[in-house]
Amino acid sequence: MAKPSNLRSSSFANSGATPEVRLFSLPGIPEIHAGRDLVKCVIDAARRAAIRFESGDILVIAQKIVSKAEGAVVRLTAIKPSPKARSLAGRLKKDPRAVQVVLNESRRIVRSDHVLITETHHGFVCANAGVDHSNVPGNDVVTLLPRNPDRSAKKLAAAFRRRTGKRVAVIISDTFGRPWRLGLTNVAIGAAGLPVLLDLRGSRDRHGKLLSATILAIADELAAAAGLLMEKSKGSPVVLIRGYRYKPRFEPATRIIRPAAEDLFR
Amino acid sequence: MAKPSNLRSSSFANSGATPEVRLFSLPGIPEIHAGRDLVKCVIDAARRAAIRFESGDILVIAQKIVSKAEGAVVRLTAIKPSPKARSLAGRLKKDPRAVQVVLNESRRIVRSDHVLITETHHGFVCANAGVDHSNVPGNDVVTLLPRNPDRSAKKLAAAFRRRTGKRVAVIISDTFGRPWRLGLTNVAIGAAGLPVLLDLRGSRDRHGKLLSATILAIADELAAAAGLLMEKSKGSPVVLIRGYRYKPRFEPATRIIRPAAEDLFR
Repeated sequence: MAKPSNLRSSSFANSGATPEVRLFSLPGIPEIHAGRDLVKCVIDAARRAAIRFESGDILVIAQKIVSKAEGAVVRLTAIKPSPKARSLAGRLKKDPRAVQVVLNESRRIVRSDHVLITETHHGFVCANAGVDHSNVPGNDVVTLLPRNPDRSAKKLAAAFRRRTGKRVAVIISDTFGRPWRLGLTNVAIGAAGLPVLLDLRGSRDRHGKLLSATILAIADELAAAAGLLMEKSKGSPVVLIRGYRYKPRFEPATRIIRPAAEDLFR
Repeated sequence: MAKPSNLRSSSFANSGATPEVRLFSLPGIPEIHAGRDLVKCVIDAARRAAIRFESGDILVIAQKIVSKAEGAVVRLTAIKPSPKARSLAGRLKKDPRAVQVVLNESRRIVRSDHVLITETHHGFVCANAGVDHSNVPGNDVVTLLPRNPDRSAKKLAAAFRRRTGKRVAVIISDTFGRPWRLGLTNVAIGAAGLPVLLDLRGSRDRHGKLLSATILAIADELAAAAGLLMEKSKGSPVVLIRGYRYKPRFEPATRIIRPAAEDLFR
């Protein structure tokens, strides 16, 4: 078990020369429902954790609570499944109404062999179009992805700026699976205030050679880092990242989506 | 621009109740060549950064320097390309000798449309089988992935234990592309001393509902977090992660590879 870190430990006589990034979980976010003031909940959680926002901080917020705050939830009792949804549901052993919601949220089915992998209306390729029944009260309610996660992130960043006076970047994240590799990782589905891709093309390595194909998906790496502290079952859906240096910019997370024409795996 | 963090800032009166993870870059790793004592280089870099290892720390080490220390490099002048390599190279506008090295490192070509995506002998699916010419001195030398990155990680972890007295987990990382999403992210290709997948199946969310499909690829999230501080061109290929809680375990990073039979995208 890793020891809890001690901020005042003498083993950390870090002179400031060593680049350091810190990740703080902001626990104690209450159950979120439509219309709840999410920004206030996050500011209150930070205050309880004795953390004051600083310009340059990055807040990674789990999609689930953004969706709930925006009312992007669906009651399955209100859904009448189509024949297509019923057929898919039979094959996948799923609730036909839940499958119908996935179809409603999708522009295209990518695979339906063992799991339903679709392309959402935003263009994200993921299981079940991001429709999820975990961490939702009640047995017949599912959450959708936010309608426009980049716009949600922009609104949240503006609200944090207004209420704290600090320029805080926002990433809205969800856990997606990957081909070829097992397990989910947290990725960025919405972003505001920071670059989502870091283009190193044209820069040179330490031997002076051009780095030819290097574009780093830093918003996804930031989301993944935050994922380490977002324990799904324990209600800590917000993580603050401090010390990561970036040039403030509005760049949507949808920029990360690989254009279909260039994608060899759709 | 994010402000540099100040360890003694009063805005960090963190009581210890807030889970916190810290990432330190260990700069000043010298150019690594075959037979160089990598563990000593890392210990020296940590000492210069005034960081003392603690049990539970996780070292993420870029594949490149492990490969160099192990002599997993190839001089292209020694390579005679096959007709297949020449044909692929013509189509992809690449050096036929470099393509031959990629074929040598691969058990199967997955795609060769715009880029050469192969399955390595380890089972990793990535561009160019991980063969890379950046951050290598000389124009005709390429690095390979380590022969057995899990074994390399295990050896390194044992050496850190021996020399520091601390139980330090090791992840060997490389930057891989993904279908559907642009940009590279840092992932784990070797691991020792920590779980690579965190299986939350059977655990319950805050509403008591079973989390059905949740396995988190935590070694990849740790590698991605470290990737934020591994600036490719600036020679900081080692990142220390502190404060992430895990149960020590030997679990190979190859466990992350999705079995071909279950993979819908090969």
